[in-house]
Amino acid sequence: MTRPRIVIIGAGFGGLAAAKALKNAPVDVTVLDRTNHHLFQPLLYQVATAGLAAPSIAAPIRHVLRKQANTTVLLAEVSGVDVAAREVLLEDGERVPYDHLIVASGATHSYFGRDDWAEHAPGLKTLDDAYAIRSRVLATFEHAERLTDPAARAACLRFVVIGGGPTGVEMAGTLAEIARHTLPGEFRRFDARATEVLLLEGGPRVLAAYPEDLSESARRQLESLGVQVRLNTRVTAIDAQGVEVSTPAGSERIATGNVIWGAGVKASPLGKVLAEATGATLDRAGRVQVLPDLSLPLHPEISVIGDLAVIESSGKPVPGIAPAAKQMGVCAAANVLARLAGQPARAFAYQDYGSMATIGRHRAIAQIGRFKFGGLLAWWLWLFAHIFFLIGFRNRIAVMIDWAAQYWTMQRHARIFLADEKKRQ
Amino acid sequence: MTRPRIVIIGAGFGGLAAAKALKNAPVDVTVLDRTNHHLFQPLLYQVATAGLAAPSIAAPIRHVLRKQANTTVLLAEVSGVDVAAREVLLEDGERVPYDHLIVASGATHSYFGRDDWAEHAPGLKTLDDAYAIRSRVLATFEHAERLTDPAARAACLRFVVIGGGPTGVEMAGTLAEIARHTLPGEFRRFDARATEVLLLEGGPRVLAAYPEDLSESARRQLESLGVQVRLNTRVTAIDAQGVEVSTPAGSERIATGNVIWGAGVKASPLGKVLAEATGATLDRAGRVQVLPDLSLPLHPEISVIGDLAVIESSGKPVPGIAPAAKQMGVCAAANVLARLAGQPARAFAYQDYGSMATIGRHRAIAQIGRFKFGGLLAWWLWLFAHIFFLIGFRNRIAVMIDWAAQYWTMQRHARIFLADEKKRQ
Repeated sequence: MTRPRIVIIGAGFGGLAAAKALKNAPVDVTVLDRTNHHLFQPLLYQVATAGLAAPSIAAPIRHVLRKQANTTVLLAEVSGVDVAAREVLLEDGERVPYDHLIVASGATHSYFGRDDWAEHAPGLKTLDDAYAIRSRVLATFEHAERLTDPAARAACLRFVVIGGGPTGVEMAGTLAEIARHTLPGEFRRFDARATEVLLLEGGPRVLAAYPEDLSESARRQLESLGVQVRLNTRVTAIDAQGVEVSTPAGSERIATGNVIWGAGVKASPLGKVLAEATGATLDRAGRVQVLPDLSLPLHPEISVIGDLAVIESSGKPVPGIAPAAKQMGVCAAANVLARLAGQPARAFAYQDYGSMATIGRHRAIAQIGRFKFGGLLAWWLWLFAHIFFLIGFRNRIAVMIDWAAQYWTMQRHARIFLADEKKRQ
Repeated sequence: MTRPRIVIIGAGFGGLAAAKALKNAPVDVTVLDRTNHHLFQPLLYQVATAGLAAPSIAAPIRHVLRKQANTTVLLAEVSGVDVAAREVLLEDGERVPYDHLIVASGATHSYFGRDDWAEHAPGLKTLDDAYAIRSRVLATFEHAERLTDPAARAACLRFVVIGGGPTGVEMAGTLAEIARHTLPGEFRRFDARATEVLLLEGGPRVLAAYPEDLSESARRQLESLGVQVRLNTRVTAIDAQGVEVSTPAGSERIATGNVIWGAGVKASPLGKVLAEATGATLDRAGRVQVLPDLSLPLHPEISVIGDLAVIESSGKPVPGIAPAAKQMGVCAAANVLARLAGQPARAFAYQDYGSMATIGRHRAIAQIGRFKFGGLLAWWLWLFAHIFFLIGFRNRIAVMIDWAAQYWTMQRHARIFLADEKKRQ
C-alpha cells in the first residue's frame, strides 16, 4: 500500500466526478461524505413538492462507485483538516491521512446572520430539508380543511417564497401548480385555487443570473401560473405569523404560516478551516479563492472544487451549478495525476454548455450559446436534460414515468407525510 | 344538512372499505385519520428494507376518496369518544358529532410491558417505523466499513429479528437477501456475506397461523437463504449491546446492535376507551369483542372493525389480515345503511380466500382453500396478488418496475437514509 492516497471530501457533483476520473489510476481513493447518497440536487424541489420520491433522485455513493476497486467510501462527518500533518479529521476522532486532498463539500443556505429565521422559513439543500418542506406544505392544506375562520384560512393558504433565484422560482411555480391543478376537488370546505403564492425578491428581477429579457419572461410565466411576483422587496423579519418586508413604497406585513427560504447561499464551514490553515482568501459567502489550477496557494496538494470554490474562467466567474462542479472534479483529478507524474497542472477552463431554469408545467427559460428562449420548448429541453443527467437507469425510468403520470393526470404521487413530522409543526 | 352523520376513525383497510361502501348513500361521511395517507401495510417491510420508496405503498386518503362528494377527510388525532353525547373527541379539543360511528383504528406492536425495549428493538407498523429501520439497517453496514476490530464488526453485522410471524419472517428473509445478493462488492473492508441473521421465535414453529407442514417449509426456506432460525427461544432482555434469550437448553446472550421487533401486537387505545364507556369486553391484546353484526352490545350505533375487533366466523376467529378488515368495513357500512332504513343488520361472515406469506426471492408459502404450497409458485402468486391489491395505477406500475429491476439486478433502489437519522443512532 505505497500508492498515493487521494482523499475526496463530499460526493456531490464535483466530488463524484473527481472520484470517477480516478477510476483506473494507480492511487488509493477515499471518498468521505456525511450522507450515504449522492443527491441530484436540481430535482430536490420536486421531492419537496411531492412530485418525486426521494430514492428517485438519490443514489448510494458506494453503489455508484462499486466497480472502482481502488476506491473506499466512508460515511463520516469531517470536522477539520490538519494541513501540516496532511490528515482529514473526522468528528469521531479518527484521522484519514492523504497525499492529495480534494475538498468538494459544497454550500448550504444562509439566513444572512438571522439564523432564528430558519425555524419559520426552511431552506432546501438536503433530503431532510425536502421532507420537512413537503410535510409543511401538505400539512398546511390539511390544516386549512379544519379551519372555520376565513381570515385564518386565508393566511394558512398563503405561501411566501423568499428569493427569486432558481430554487425560489421552482418552489413558487410548483406550489401554484399544486394549488390550481393537483388539489382542486379534494377538499370539501375550501377551494384550493384560493391559495396565494407570493415570490419575494430583493432585487429588480428574478433569475438574475440570466439575461434581462429571460428574467422578464420568467416573471411573466410565473404570473401566468398565478404567482404574485414582488420585486425590490426585502424581508426584514420573519416569525410564526408572517413576514415583514420593506419595499420602495414602504414597509408591509404579510400574514402567513408558510414561508420557504430560497435566498442566501453560504459555503461549507470547511472553507474557513482551509483559509485559516493555508492563508487562502474567502469571499463574502465563505467560498475559497483558488488558483487557476484549482489548488490552494502554497498547497498544491489541496484542491477545492464546486460550490466551495471561487474562480474565474475566460474573465467571468464560474457559476455554482452542477456542470461546473463536474468539470472542476475532472480537472482536479487530472491535476492530481499530473503532479504525481511530475507534470505541470493545467488551468481550469469552464465549458459553458448553457443553462436552464424551470418554472412550472410548459414553463421554463433556457440560454444555450447565443440562443435564448422561454416557454414550452425550454421546458421540454429542461425535462429531457434532467432525465438524461440523472444517475442510474432505474431512476431515469422512474422519473420519466412519474412525470408522464403527472403530465396527464396533474397528480403528484409523493403526497405523503409522516405523523411525527406533522407534530413538529 | 339533516342527513345522518357517519364518522369513521382510521383509514386503513377496514375504514377505507367502509367509506367506499358509503359512496352513493344519502349520508354525510367524515373520515378521521392521524396521517394523510392510507398505507398498504403488507408491503411496509419493503420500505424498511430499501426495496420500495414510501410513496409507492401509500396514497393520500383524500385523493382516494376525492370523487365521493358526501365524504370529508380530516387529518386529526382522536383522543376519545363521548358515547353518551355521540361525539368523537379530537386531541385539539374539537368534537365531531356522529349518528353512527365505525371505529377502525387498528393495532400497533407491543413489547409485552417492556416498553424500554422499544429503543433498541424498533417495530414496524407505520412509515415512520419503516424509515427508522431502514436508516438503522443501512447505517449498520456503513458503520461496519469503519470498524477494525473483528469481534466488534461481527456483532455489528449480526441482525436479530424477534418473532416468527409474518413481519419477522419477511424482515429476516429480506435482510439475508440484502447481505447475500445486494451488498457484496460494495464494501472494501469486509464481505457483506459474513452478515448473520437470526430469527428468534418463542414457540415451536414460525408462521404459526399456517398448517404445520407450511411452517416447516417456511423454516427450511428461511434457512436456505442463510437465516438462522431459533425456535422455542424466548427473549428475556434487550439492551444496546445485545439480547438475552432463554431456551430449553438454558439461557444465552447474543451480541448485536441490530434488533428488529416483530413479535407482539396490541390494539389501538381506543379499544379501552370504548370498553370503559360501553361495557364491551376486551381480549388480552386489548381488542374489542363485538356482536356478530360488528356493533357493540347496547350500542348499535357503534361498530368496531379490522384489527381492533375480535369476532368469530363459522366457529373460527377471524384473522387480523387486510382481506378480513376490508370485508368487515363493507359489512359495517351495509349494516349502518340497513339500520337507517329500519332493517335488521346482518351478521358478519368471513369469506376466506386463502392467505400467503413471503420469505424472500422465490420463497413463500400459500394456503388457498384445500391447496397448500411453498416455494416458487407461492412466491409468484404472492407477488401478483400484492401488485393487484395496491391502490393506484401509478403505484402498481412503480412497484412492478422496482421489483423487475430488483429481480434482474439484485439491487434495491431505496438505499438512502438521511443525515439526521444517522445521528439518532
